[in-house]
Amino acid sequence: MGDSVRIVIDTIGGDNGAAVCVKGAVKGLKNSRNVKIILTGNEDELEKLLSEEEYDRSRLEVVNATEEISLHEAPVEAVRKKKDSSLVVGMNLLKEGKAEALISAGSSGAILAGGQFIVGRAKGVKRAPLAPLIPTTKEPSLLIDCGANVDAKPEVLVQFARMGSIYMESVMGVKNPRVAIVNIGMEEEKGNALVKETYPLLKACKDINFTGSIEARQIPYGEADVILTEAFVGNVIIKLYEGLAKMMLGELKEAIMSSAKGKIGGLLIKDSLKGMKTKFSASNKGGAPLLGLKGLVVKIHGNSKEEEVISAIEQCRTFVENDVSGKIVRGFEESTNGD
Amino acid sequence: MGDSVRIVIDTIGGDNGAAVCVKGAVKGLKNSRNVKIILTGNEDELEKLLSEEEYDRSRLEVVNATEEISLHEAPVEAVRKKKDSSLVVGMNLLKEGKAEALISAGSSGAILAGGQFIVGRAKGVKRAPLAPLIPTTKEPSLLIDCGANVDAKPEVLVQFARMGSIYMESVMGVKNPRVAIVNIGMEEEKGNALVKETYPLLKACKDINFTGSIEARQIPYGEADVILTEAFVGNVIIKLYEGLAKMMLGELKEAIMSSAKGKIGGLLIKDSLKGMKTKFSASNKGGAPLLGLKGLVVKIHGNSKEEEVISAIEQCRTFVENDVSGKIVRGFEESTNGD
Repeated sequence: MGDSVRIVIDTIGGDNGAAVCVKGAVKGLKNSRNVKIILTGNEDELEKLLSEEEYDRSRLEVVNATEEISLHEAPVEAVRKKKDSSLVVGMNLLKEGKAEALISAGSSGAILAGGQFIVGRAKGVKRAPLAPLIPTTKEPSLLIDCGANVDAKPEVLVQFARMGSIYMESVMGVKNPRVAIVNIGMEEEKGNALVKETYPLLKACKDINFTGSIEARQIPYGEADVILTEAFVGNVIIKLYEGLAKMMLGELKEAIMSSAKGKIGGLLIKDSLKGMKTKFSASNKGGAPLLGLKGLVVKIHGNSKEEEVISAIEQCRTFVENDVSGKIVRGFEESTNGD
Repeated sequence: MGDSVRIVIDTIGGDNGAAVCVKGAVKGLKNSRNVKIILTGNEDELEKLLSEEEYDRSRLEVVNATEEISLHEAPVEAVRKKKDSSLVVGMNLLKEGKAEALISAGSSGAILAGGQFIVGRAKGVKRAPLAPLIPTTKEPSLLIDCGANVDAKPEVLVQFARMGSIYMESVMGVKNPRVAIVNIGMEEEKGNALVKETYPLLKACKDINFTGSIEARQIPYGEADVILTEAFVGNVIIKLYEGLAKMMLGELKEAIMSSAKGKIGGLLIKDSLKGMKTKFSASNKGGAPLLGLKGLVVKIHGNSKEEEVISAIEQCRTFVENDVSGKIVRGFEESTNGD
């Protein structure tokens, strides 16, 4: 099994504890022969959970880690100080070449900081973007960047466009992915200084399928495969997406429950709503990849369950098997616009 | 009627034609004695529409305008060249002191450009922000700025915070409105350069109730009365709000209609949904004010109906009667941070 994709799962920090990671890992091993898993976390707890499962022990390893990084800690400091946290121990495995990918449901800030400082950026990569998939009426779109790279420069956005394009093609199987830049109007002369400077650079890139600007109102309709923006705006988009969807579903439920007639109607549309929820669920698409690092880091939601862990394992396997990191680095080397 | 609030209604450019403006104007006159209306547009058409209505002619005037600014024209050029368009004719009435407010359902770009170049900024105002109300689970919040002021400076955002605060207090009747700045985290040290520079300036303002950062996911829950951000992000927020809400309601409808059971359920929850729609409808709150000008300019949706016109008339009356423009200008004069 020398060619197996070795995936670390950080088992501390998610809302649902280590059990969902263990169950997900065991299922992940069954789903694909080409995967090995390393669980970082409380060894005693993990071994106890594992003792209840049936799996090929030669493909699963436990690495003890005693510290936990909480959501309330300053990320950079936490990553630097808590060397025995499950996240830092896992990231060091990536750094040392003992694994190709890491999955964590822990603090986003710590994941971003650790990716930068421990795993490190791949050759030629200026910044490492966080790129979640967002649901649309068609296929999900990749929103790049939602990470920590605020006030990014045009050449950094161009790199993000390339990375996002390679990711969508190689991992999601989208042929010739459409890349659009988030803007406040459709015309080329519209936008803030960053967008105006980046636009012609993107137009000049022969290796991406740049389709121009996208306005925020079009995003939910899947009119681009890669939605390019700097991290501040990306963060606003992903959080508003989540907040507004949650609010609307909550209000709908409240409206339905406010009358007897509504309640009966609600029961009748329950199945329809479930189908809609599944369509918009990201759990079967994996987590948000942190791209451009020396290894793949995948951030899954804090409230992730077994299914999300399983999907993320598949995502990591596809990513590594298709050599996405190599494609990104080679893409930058070949491109005249790469630097 | 020397003290009447004189309101111009631009009757060209809305999706529903001049008829909704005429009907709205006539109802607006009936709603409040302290209002006079000036309709700009095709005189023949307007007189024909008016001949079918009963109203006090001494309080309504028609000013002929022959040109139309379409949505596809470059706004600045259109406003400069089409001097006989209903929008430019109306804005000139504001400039000449013949009216205090203007309502238009036409091109946003032309409204922003005309506000800037024809009506002009009030004394001390650096930029004129567009500030729509957005629906939340509580009361609507004012999102300032969604206009054309991309790449704004910190001192400009501070002015917007003051204007928004005065507007919410004087027009919407919110006491001591909570002002929050859109950010990518809650801590003071988070954010891009603009937010980091603006944050301490807002904290130092004694005349606004600054509550700190707001993340995009909290916006739909009405956790601030004034949501402060620069225009690029504001534009993304308002358009994503519209796009996502429309998409979700569309998907819900489709999900319900996809099965016989769902269809019956859909009929039963129809009333509940209507209540929800009313709650989230902005039609009873007026349009988006363009603040900080020498007169009030209100942008209503292109698809506005009679109700939106009536609400906007009430909004203009409240704005002028409460001397919001005066309060804004005096606020800047008194404030040590105003410049």
